Formats: sequence, structure tokens, C-alpha cells
Amino acid sequence: MYCSLCNGVPMFQFMTSSRIVFGEGALINSFSTFNQFGYSVLLVTGKDNQRSEPLVNYLKQQNMRYQQVAVLGEPLIAMIEEMAAMGRRFRPDMVISIGGGSVLDAGKALAALIPNQGSVYDYVEVVGRNVPLQAKPLPFIAIPTTSGTGSEVSKNAVLRSAQENVKVSLRSADMLPDLAIIDPTLTYGMDPVMSGCCGMDAFTHLMEAYVCGTPNPLTDMVCEEGLRRLAGAIVSACEDDDPRARSDMSFAAMLGGMALANAKLGAAHGLASSLGGRLSAPHGLITAQLAPYVMQENVLAAREAGRADILNRYRQLACILTGRTDADIADGIAWTKRTLERLNLPSVSEYGLCDTLFDEVAEDALLSNAIKGNPLPLNKERLQGILEQICQECKVDISNQV
Amino acid sequence: MYCSLCNGVPMFQFMTSSRIVFGEGALINSFSTFNQFGYSVLLVTGKDNQRSEPLVNYLKQQNMRYQQVAVLGEPLIAMIEEMAAMGRRFRPDMVISIGGGSVLDAGKALAALIPNQGSVYDYVEVVGRNVPLQAKPLPFIAIPTTSGTGSEVSKNAVLRSAQENVKVSLRSADMLPDLAIIDPTLTYGMDPVMSGCCGMDAFTHLMEAYVCGTPNPLTDMVCEEGLRRLAGAIVSACEDDDPRARSDMSFAAMLGGMALANAKLGAAHGLASSLGGRLSAPHGLITAQLAPYVMQENVLAAREAGRADILNRYRQLACILTGRTDADIADGIAWTKRTLERLNLPSVSEYGLCDTLFDEVAEDALLSNAIKGNPLPLNKERLQGILEQICQECKVDISNQV
Repeated sequence: MYCSLCNGVPMFQFMTSSRIVFGEGALINSFSTFNQFGYSVLLVTGKDNQRSEPLVNYLKQQNMRYQQVAVLGEPLIAMIEEMAAMGRRFRPDMVISIGGGSVLDAGKALAALIPNQGSVYDYVEVVGRNVPLQAKPLPFIAIPTTSGTGSEVSKNAVLRSAQENVKVSLRSADMLPDLAIIDPTLTYGMDPVMSGCCGMDAFTHLMEAYVCGTPNPLTDMVCEEGLRRLAGAIVSACEDDDPRARSDMSFAAMLGGMALANAKLGAAHGLASSLGGRLSAPHGLITAQLAPYVMQENVLAAREAGRADILNRYRQLACILTGRTDADIADGIAWTKRTLERLNLPSVSEYGLCDTLFDEVAEDALLSNAIKGNPLPLNKERLQGILEQICQECKVDISNQV
Repeated sequence: MYCSLCNGVPMFQFMTSSRIVFGEGALINSFSTFNQFGYSVLLVTGKDNQRSEPLVNYLKQQNMRYQQVAVLGEPLIAMIEEMAAMGRRFRPDMVISIGGGSVLDAGKALAALIPNQGSVYDYVEVVGRNVPLQAKPLPFIAIPTTSGTGSEVSKNAVLRSAQENVKVSLRSADMLPDLAIIDPTLTYGMDPVMSGCCGMDAFTHLMEAYVCGTPNPLTDMVCEEGLRRLAGAIVSACEDDDPRARSDMSFAAMLGGMALANAKLGAAHGLASSLGGRLSAPHGLITAQLAPYVMQENVLAAREAGRADILNRYRQLACILTGRTDADIADGIAWTKRTLERLNLPSVSEYGLCDTLFDEVAEDALLSNAIKGNPLPLNKERLQGILEQICQECKVDISNQV
């Protein structure tokens, strides 16, 4: 991407977690750095206590004051309100999240909300007042146990509004985790389908940020490296739990987080934020199944609009995914569909996606923040068309199996 | 680089400035963000007031309290002591540096020292006590007007000790600039030789970090992108002052700073820290002229030691620099020598490098921090050999000209 004025690099901003520790053993090796942030901890975990056990033992051994809260599903706004009230009474020096994307996002939101007055709705996008945070968030340490969301290096927390049936973000540059600890061993042994959903979520971050309307040379660098590693690792990580592939997936997911924090996303995430509020399907599953159809629709729209720049991006994407310098756009879409098949992910229609929802899902998607990054505008009819194609494909799958 | 245990990505840490703003107009566009750090400024500039004028005008317009100090040459420890004492009396909320590497490093050191008690020697490496900073540095904004050092995204400040005749670093993860504003227009019109020195300094950062003993996948990504852009831009930026090439050089220099802050360097920087304390030659000139001979010596040593991994790195480096997938190690060294010739940089022997210095320069280089990153250890004789080669080459050049 070059600036039209000087033909040089265009103006851009880049932000990420100020400190990233990555690798096998990164968690245990980082314990001793926690006390730079203070001595009392609000610890946010998921349902599985096994992965957080060494951390809890460390806090106990060090006689650190801590309170543990468990986030069992997607973080609902009402749940975060309650936890923030509790957190304000406990007055922690820092928040540590160890878990999947929901756990990380809940902790990130709590670190932001605890020092700030008022309700979640004051600060949240789309359904809230989107007021900037007044006080700086508490120090936040993010420790992912999945490789998908990249939340450990991004500046937003996705929350579900049960009232409005959508997913929305609490977002601020100050919400970037102060320390991201990415230990791929925490992802070992995760079940293949869940690994696939997370991995394809990372894919969709990298893919949408790469083709989005506002990439910059740093996000391009990050996306290219992330897509290259992900393409080589995703099947082996999910099917064989191969340590090297797991490590590459953790690395790619982190790069996906950097990309989405500094470029924009697109229609797959726009539709997913709308669908995600209505279906209980995992976020990664939704974005994954949307991805190839959004790619197809964008390519179609770009051809109609004569946008060679966008088509060229999709061609480059195909080359990276296939590892072939002569790949064409269709090869990139085919790679995505083939990978989805290999990973054996369930269909979103099993989670209740039906055509009566198409109209309102498309309408809400147009209001999302993510869709603004789509390489070119897609109207409501085109978005509905994408949803129809997913459902048709699912029906074909089912009829093939009968 | 893969971990020997799991064959995955090895453990690494990555830190950079939490916010980078890059592009034409980045400076003027960033003014309004300064007040997040407070209202009084210690402003560090160089000899040229033209580039800092819009910033000074802004501070005046906003009635911000500020004090300006000018750094006219390399930051001497004694000079920094004095400026820090003055800064402690002035009590600024933040430090802003606008200038070349010396100005940036002086400001970075002042931001660290002002809130801390004691002398520079308490905190500095090699010649000092290397004690960790007690208090967090003041917020520091770095605005480079050259494209070379990458100091805007690194965590160390290079200071010259007049007493011990060496250059040493004040270094801390907390010293990463809070905001790096990289506006390539500030480098427009810089004279070709100075541009060449700065550009080759950036080259040596990227090259040494790429072949060093402790790269990681993030620094590799950063180095590959930086070297690729630099190779395509350096001559055109220096000779033609071409805006696109200037922009690429600013981008590459920033990536060089990220690389050196997160990987290590090598013998060129080890020798330069020792030589730089003794000669008044620009740092970039010294590292530039050392670069091809250090490459040659490392390749020789790697062949003797049967280190295929190191040789492979040098081969990849050659491919990136030449843009050819079939390039060999020698092509990378040749590219470096050819580029030095094209840039018409003066010889270091013009600055008084003579063989009576070789012994002590090599001895001091072995004590430097940078040399620890060299892909494999080089003994004193090998380091002396590198210095001899530079001088011989210079004599040949001179005799050719006679």
C-alpha cells in the first residue's frame, strides 16, 4: 500500500501489547514478572481449572491476595457489570486472564471497567454510548489457552448483548494487554473441532485484515507471515495435535490479533457479530463458514467495480495460502473450502441458522464496526446472498450424507 | 528458528513502542495527542531548528510550559548528567526528542534519568554499575529526522564515555518510547553522505539482527521486510531524495530498531562501540564499513566450524538483498560492498583509524554488549583482522585515486 501523494508508505498507526512473551514454558517463566504490577490479582479463568492450576499455585505460594472468577460462556454485558461491581469492592492491582477468547475478553473488559465509573453501556460500541474511558485501565495480563482470537494483543473486548441480540466491542488503545504470555503448551490436547474453530477464527482475522480497505505495511507484513504459518500448520495442529504445528498456530493467532488491532476486518466479522448474538455457535465456527462466501462475494463485487487493486490482493492471498507463486484467486477460495472440509467443523445451520433470520442479520451486520473494513461496500442483498449460500451448502452436505 | 524440544517456535520476548504513528504528515497530525502525557515538556533538539519549528510553534500556541535543550554532537555522559540535573529542576511531565539518533538517545536517557536519583554511571552498562532503574521513566516521545538508528522503537540510549573512550548503553524495557512519530518528510533534503551513513546503519541493524545467535520469528519477519525495502530504496533515497524511497528508508530504519531491541546485534556493532569512542566518525559510517568484513569473517568462521545453520542465514540474506532466489552468500557480501561504493561514503581511515589502535579496539569490542549477539564467537585476532582489512581496502582506494 502506497501513499497517493508521495507514492511512499501511507500514514498509519500501529499499537500492540508492550510486552509479549512467547514459547513453551513462557507461563512459568513469566511468574516472577507479575509483581511489577502489584500484589493483588483479580484472576479470570474458564471452566477448565487444569490449565490455570500452576498459576493459582504460584499466587498461593507467594501469598498474593487474589480473587478468582470463572467465565463459563461468552461474556454477557450483564455478567460483566456484576463482575465489575465485585472487582471494584475487591480493588485488585491487576487483572490476569487465563483461558480462551471469552475469558481474555472478560478480563480485558474488567480491567477497563473497574477503575471507571458507570455502566458497561456507557463505554460500549453500537448498542452503548461509546464514551472514551476516563481512567486508565488496571494492568492486564492475558494468557491464551486457545489459538484463535488474538485477544492477547488486541485492544477490544467482545461482549454479548442479550437484550439486542448482537455482539459488540468495548474498545480503547489503553486496553491493550500490558503483558501477553503465549505458551503453546496450553493449547496441547485441545479437541480437534474446537481447535479448528479457533484456528479458522485466526485465519479470518488474518485474511480480512489482509484484504481490508485500510491495510498498512506493518499489518501486511504481519498478515503475510501469519497466513503462511497458519496454512502450513492448521490441519496438523487440529488433527495430530503436533507440537510444532500448535506452536505455529499460537504464533499465527497472535499475529491475527496484531492485524485486527491495527487494520480493519470485513463482512465475515460484520455478519458474525450479528449472527453471534443470535446463535450459540462458537464465534470461530461462524466466521470460518462465512469466510469463503465473503471472499467469493467480494471478488465478484470487485470484478463488477473494476477494482484491480482488490483482485490483486486476493491473488496474493491465494499465493500465500497455497504456497504457489502462480495461484489464482479461485485457488485461495478453494483452499479455504477444502480446509473447512478437512477440519470437519459442524455446520452453522445445526445451530439454528434459518432463512427467516437473514433479513435482520444482514441489517444488523451493516451497523457493525467490522464491516466498515470490508474492501468495498456490500449491500444488504449481497449480505443476504452470502447467508443463503452457507445454508444451501449445508443442505447439500446433509443431503449428500442421507 | 525452531525450538529443539518441540521443534516449534522457541521462547522469545518482544517489546516495542506501544504506539507508532508513521507517514507523511504524521508529526502535525500527532500534536493533539501530546496532552495525554501532561502539559510541560523538556524538548530535546539538534542543531537544525528548521525541522523542529512546527513543533515549537505548537507548544507556544498551546501555552505549554517547555524548556528546549540542544544536543549538538554525540551525547557525552557528562553532558547528560548536566542536562538531567537541569531537567530535575524543571520537572517536565514528558520529554520530546526531535532529531537524529544522538538527539533521540539523549532525550531517551533524560526521560529515564530525571525521575531517578544518582548518576548516569549508576545505570549505564559496561563502564557503569548497570543498576536497574528504580522509578519509571517520564513519558518519552521520539520523532526521528533521519532514517538510521531506529531509536524511536528501541529501549536503549547510546552514550559516549569520554573517560573510557567507548560508547555504552543505558538500557531498560521501560525506556521504550511511549509514542514514536515517524514522518518521512522530516528526512527529505538531507545530504546524500549523511543519508548514506544513516541508511547503512539501519542496514547493519537489520543484517546483524537477522544473522545473530538469538533471532526469533518476530524479529525474522521484521528483518526480512526491512532488508527487502532497504535494498530497493537506499540508493534512490540518498542519490535522488526520492519521496517513496525516503519513506521506505524511514520504514526500514524503524524495523531495524524493532529488530535490535528484540534480537541481538553482532561484531560490527561490537567493534563500532569500541571504535566510536575513539574516532569522531559518524556511527553509521563505522558500522557500514565494518559490515561486509564482519560478514566475510563470520562466514569464514562458520565454514570452519561446520555451522550450516549460520551459512544458510547468510544465503537467505543474500537472496533478500539481491531479490534473487538463487543468490549465494558471496552475492550478499558483494551487494553490501557495491552499495557502499555507490553511496560514496568517506573512509574511516580519514577519521584516524590506524593500526596502533587495533589491539585495544578489539579488546574493548570483546567486552561490548553487542558482540554477544554475533552468530558465533570471534576471537581478538579475528577482530583485529577485520580492522586490518578495512584499512587495507582504504589504502587501495586511496592508491587507486592517486
